[in-house]
Amino acid sequence: MRGGSSWVGVVWRGLGKKTSHSSYSSPPKYPSVLPDAWIPSTKHHRLQSSGIFPSGHTAAIIDGKSIARDIRFRIAGEIRRAKAATGKSPGLAVVLVGKRRDSKTCINIKLRACDEIGIATLIAELPENCTETELLDVVSGLNEDPSVHGIIVQLPLPQHLDEEKIMTVVSPEKDVDGFHPLNMGNLAMRGREPLFIPCASKGCIELLLRLGVEIVGKKSVVIGRSKIVGLPTSFLLQRHHATVSTVHAFTKNPEQITSQADIVITDVGIPNIVRGHWLKPGAVVIDMGTNLVKDPNSRHGFRVTGDVCFEEAIKVVSAITPVPGGVGPVTISMLLSNTLDSAKRAFGFSST
Amino acid sequence: MRGGSSWVGVVWRGLGKKTSHSSYSSPPKYPSVLPDAWIPSTKHHRLQSSGIFPSGHTAAIIDGKSIARDIRFRIAGEIRRAKAATGKSPGLAVVLVGKRRDSKTCINIKLRACDEIGIATLIAELPENCTETELLDVVSGLNEDPSVHGIIVQLPLPQHLDEEKIMTVVSPEKDVDGFHPLNMGNLAMRGREPLFIPCASKGCIELLLRLGVEIVGKKSVVIGRSKIVGLPTSFLLQRHHATVSTVHAFTKNPEQITSQADIVITDVGIPNIVRGHWLKPGAVVIDMGTNLVKDPNSRHGFRVTGDVCFEEAIKVVSAITPVPGGVGPVTISMLLSNTLDSAKRAFGFSST
Repeated sequence: MRGGSSWVGVVWRGLGKKTSHSSYSSPPKYPSVLPDAWIPSTKHHRLQSSGIFPSGHTAAIIDGKSIARDIRFRIAGEIRRAKAATGKSPGLAVVLVGKRRDSKTCINIKLRACDEIGIATLIAELPENCTETELLDVVSGLNEDPSVHGIIVQLPLPQHLDEEKIMTVVSPEKDVDGFHPLNMGNLAMRGREPLFIPCASKGCIELLLRLGVEIVGKKSVVIGRSKIVGLPTSFLLQRHHATVSTVHAFTKNPEQITSQADIVITDVGIPNIVRGHWLKPGAVVIDMGTNLVKDPNSRHGFRVTGDVCFEEAIKVVSAITPVPGGVGPVTISMLLSNTLDSAKRAFGFSST
Repeated sequence: MRGGSSWVGVVWRGLGKKTSHSSYSSPPKYPSVLPDAWIPSTKHHRLQSSGIFPSGHTAAIIDGKSIARDIRFRIAGEIRRAKAATGKSPGLAVVLVGKRRDSKTCINIKLRACDEIGIATLIAELPENCTETELLDVVSGLNEDPSVHGIIVQLPLPQHLDEEKIMTVVSPEKDVDGFHPLNMGNLAMRGREPLFIPCASKGCIELLLRLGVEIVGKKSVVIGRSKIVGLPTSFLLQRHHATVSTVHAFTKNPEQITSQADIVITDVGIPNIVRGHWLKPGAVVIDMGTNLVKDPNSRHGFRVTGDVCFEEAIKVVSAITPVPGGVGPVTISMLLSNTLDSAKRAFGFSST
């Protein structure tokens, strides 16, 4: 981590190594003006079959890593074209308060992805005990900085800081996480266009559409209603005209509702909470959970798992994302996509 | 209508006659800081039984008029206390473009309600062919006017005007309709507090809570997803921890989903679309539809009806709002409530 000695270390990290796909010149995939329904790449991705599918007994495993690679490949090309036309590169700023190891890991994944693709990055580090004013000043400075096109305030923040207040101070024009209430309101209201859609939700719909899953009119259940995953995912499904039900901690018989759904999205944070009998035969499942469970056989003593009991689910559903390797890598790609969109708006660059 | 000759007529209407409840001094009912879940009056209202209820064959008819009267009575007292303490009265401005008869009727109902309760009103009238700039200038002027605490732009606007853009120009601090995307986003996101909740949605929850209907964990279906009724109502039900499903034009077998719901809210705009067999025995139904149907026996040749086939529904459900006389009058009361809240914030007046 750079600039750790001062109370706030702000370091621009140089543009990373060029992606290996430097000769690619596909048409633009991410329009700066969002249509009523999010329209991702039109290319349908081949499912990585688990072998027995489509005999009906084992689901196709959705290969998020491969899809993420494809998206990044296209974004890298777009960044090169923007640079060639304007001489400028997109810039992403990450604000980190404290030294939580999981936050640092998360940030490093994002920064590495930016490096690989040609997005400049900046880290603003503040100590665990910083004041709200100090943090707000940093965010305000980034709002004003013309070389910054996207700002992420890494969550969770220490408890003495008002997370809601700070997320509102991030300029809606640089809110690449899509968590500002103005962007969230514009996402919820059909006929309006948010500047950014939260990355995990955008990734979820990207997967469904790439796989050719029909969403219009389909019964869809979102399990969990967090502001950063479940809630915006339900908005996006709604924009695609799914019939959406939200299941949460107060829902009685969640398995009864879930078992009627053609599309199931989980955002719970409890390993294996969604069992095989919760799922309708042939359903498509996107598992957004990222849970650490102890595993003495793993190098670090734990492994990452989702919300869905994978072993049971694959015997029931038609397709499912694994954890890890499912929606996670696509979520990171959507952060890159949002940052590119923001930069294009700032540059006045359109690839049409 | 005043000031009709100039292209924009802005006329402050004087404070109306005093309400007859002048000696009332109940505790404040509408906190300026909205809790996570909207908490209306604690008083449970007696259902106006249709006679056979609770024998199980005919529903209780929810008496919206009586509940609305009770709410206005309390608001009138609060306005008097605010005036006594600050010397000021709340002010509501209505912007009307064109001469649609239904819009004028709607506005007159709102203005009369304001008059009765002690809210000053102002009408800004613009001709049907006004430009967007002219309309935006009027709204901006009202945003700046310290005597205006609430602004309503009467919908629908003529087609050449960008409704979404204009609704965004209304200051979120005076957005008593609650349609600004910032207020909508803050309503959708738990842990945040919108300055205003859309009036029909607020009225719907007010009715449910006054009637003692348990919402937490209940299966709730909102039929229709308009930005001004269905969508915010689903947010508000969600805030009260209902399990919410949204049914709309693309939903297959809407009656199948609806028939599982303990609470059904309709916002469709099609008379009698919700039939008796759509409803679960014992459900509570709030009919938000306001549809004009031809009726040669009526004085005007038509009558107002809701979305629910009332005659069939009352044989199935436990309670239902009639149309007219159900949620409509309560919606108007919520507009008064929102205007009062806004004025209290502007006055720095708290009745605690």
